[in-house]
Amino acid sequence: MRTTTGWQSTNGSTDLQRVPLERRDLRSEDIAVRVDYCGICHSDLHAIHGTTEGTVVPGHEFTGTVTAAGPGVTRFAPGDPVAVGTIVDSCGVCTMCRAGQENYCHEFPTLTYGGTDRVDGSRTLGGYTREYVLREDFAYPLPAGLDPAAAAPLMCAGITVWEPLRAAGIGPGSRVAVAGLGGLGHLAVKLAAALGAEVTALSRTADKAADAAALGAAGLLLTTDPDAMAAARETFDLVVDTISAEHELPPLLRLLAVDGTLTLLGRLGPTQVDIRNLMAGRRKLTSSGVGGRPSTAELLEFCAERGITADVEVLPSAQVGAALTRLEKGDVRYRFVLDLSDLD
Amino acid sequence: MRTTTGWQSTNGSTDLQRVPLERRDLRSEDIAVRVDYCGICHSDLHAIHGTTEGTVVPGHEFTGTVTAAGPGVTRFAPGDPVAVGTIVDSCGVCTMCRAGQENYCHEFPTLTYGGTDRVDGSRTLGGYTREYVLREDFAYPLPAGLDPAAAAPLMCAGITVWEPLRAAGIGPGSRVAVAGLGGLGHLAVKLAAALGAEVTALSRTADKAADAAALGAAGLLLTTDPDAMAAARETFDLVVDTISAEHELPPLLRLLAVDGTLTLLGRLGPTQVDIRNLMAGRRKLTSSGVGGRPSTAELLEFCAERGITADVEVLPSAQVGAALTRLEKGDVRYRFVLDLSDLD
Repeated sequence: MRTTTGWQSTNGSTDLQRVPLERRDLRSEDIAVRVDYCGICHSDLHAIHGTTEGTVVPGHEFTGTVTAAGPGVTRFAPGDPVAVGTIVDSCGVCTMCRAGQENYCHEFPTLTYGGTDRVDGSRTLGGYTREYVLREDFAYPLPAGLDPAAAAPLMCAGITVWEPLRAAGIGPGSRVAVAGLGGLGHLAVKLAAALGAEVTALSRTADKAADAAALGAAGLLLTTDPDAMAAARETFDLVVDTISAEHELPPLLRLLAVDGTLTLLGRLGPTQVDIRNLMAGRRKLTSSGVGGRPSTAELLEFCAERGITADVEVLPSAQVGAALTRLEKGDVRYRFVLDLSDLD
Repeated sequence: MRTTTGWQSTNGSTDLQRVPLERRDLRSEDIAVRVDYCGICHSDLHAIHGTTEGTVVPGHEFTGTVTAAGPGVTRFAPGDPVAVGTIVDSCGVCTMCRAGQENYCHEFPTLTYGGTDRVDGSRTLGGYTREYVLREDFAYPLPAGLDPAAAAPLMCAGITVWEPLRAAGIGPGSRVAVAGLGGLGHLAVKLAAALGAEVTALSRTADKAADAAALGAAGLLLTTDPDAMAAARETFDLVVDTISAEHELPPLLRLLAVDGTLTLLGRLGPTQVDIRNLMAGRRKLTSSGVGGRPSTAELLEFCAERGITADVEVLPSAQVGAALTRLEKGDVRYRFVLDLSDLD
């Protein structure tokens, strides 16, 4: 076994403790990664709060440097910059895996933390650590020119909004609205704008107009203004809804043009939908979860070409507890990223 | 006023009575149509049962012959064969009307029966009558070669399934499943197959296999067979769900390939949807309601080219009560059509 150091939550506490951790010895197709930067995702908070008994080491969007490679590794060598996301393995043979949608693997993909290793059955420990070991197939070359701290959130927040934008065929001439200007939402604005769409940020308050414009939005639509909402009726091809709190869907559906799509990324689980609200205008309701390997690689290339990264606040990893507390209050623009060099 | 004869329900009774009825005098852009054949739609039953106090004259898919035209009429002349569907007017100026989706008119389209005339405020009386008067813009030339009795159901059942097939881009190489082999479903099979798709009928019983094949389905998938359903997982681009009874959506969603679409045509209203079932595979849930003028005209042309009509059982209109009773029991293959010549 290899040893490393990381930040571990015990019994649901956001006061994470620095602990020694073990990583497996490298299998033939494994690489070891020195984790340099790891984003803090809202899912990390859910995972911590959901682990009321036992421990969890969160973190599933990180960048780092390859430090060792198994004999069967072909794509990486020590020193290579890499990026890792929410998935570190999958069955590889089901129709979803074969279609490059390992995120929907029939046997469920192996999650970067809280998952079960497909070989030894151990529970995976996330990226709030100084070292991670994984199959090379689930690591991505980090393109030159992308800031490694600001690129880390592309691996979860970024790919989560990228796939629905691509699935909807967003490009020049498309009209996209983004609801919720957080970790996902701010990247949705940036990516949709970079794809050539006219992007509108949806907000309950006007004070986000400057932020939205800085991200690339053509405008801000006040969802609390009935006249503005009425004027915007049927004007969007896609509404990217990143709001995690309970909220009404009909006002967002009414913004869609005929055959438009509302994709729910922040609020999953059982929801009451009046099918008549979909009928009027043949509106589509959908959702998606992170992405497969081909589109993740595509996203990184696109971001490198366009110079797109997340807007991040980088903190020494020792401040992870404070960051989680601030994240719970929504006090972040737009993503915390831990600098893990303080674990050396 | 003009006078005609029709079949009227009073206080929710399916024992319709033959009564004299009035039609408006022709406005400049109106045509008068001698109704030859009118299909019996499930909506007619709903409308009858929903009219517990008062009267209703149902019928919103009919074919006939122009008998008179107002001075402003440009597209029709007496003697022309015509088809009329569920909508006889709309505001004409909203974004939906301008987009050729009068079915989603912001001011609500004027329904062929039970609607409110936009000029005189009178309640519209449907096609279970010998004469109908409407704006020429909402009548369609009935192409030569289409049997007028069997073509009547194209105007509601047909267009209801046509728009979602077209919106989903169904063509050669597409894989389409159709749930519910009734008035809508049998036309969905025929039209999808004619568009070049490989069509599978979904059924709870194997005894419909021959019927499905006769309609053009490549196969029948037994929804009660867990092995067959598992084998068919993620194999369809579109599932056209025409089932009106309460039923589970997850088994149908699992049949969809990545980015596939489930369109609900038979069951509207509030429905519980677990968004995670949409997330897995970026599946889209949608619905639609009849169609606009451009696609209705397109459907009639397509059907004329391919020789497609509904499979109908034609009855003298005096048997409307018996037909409604049989329809309530599901005893029809696949659409009743009233021959209204017995009203002369």
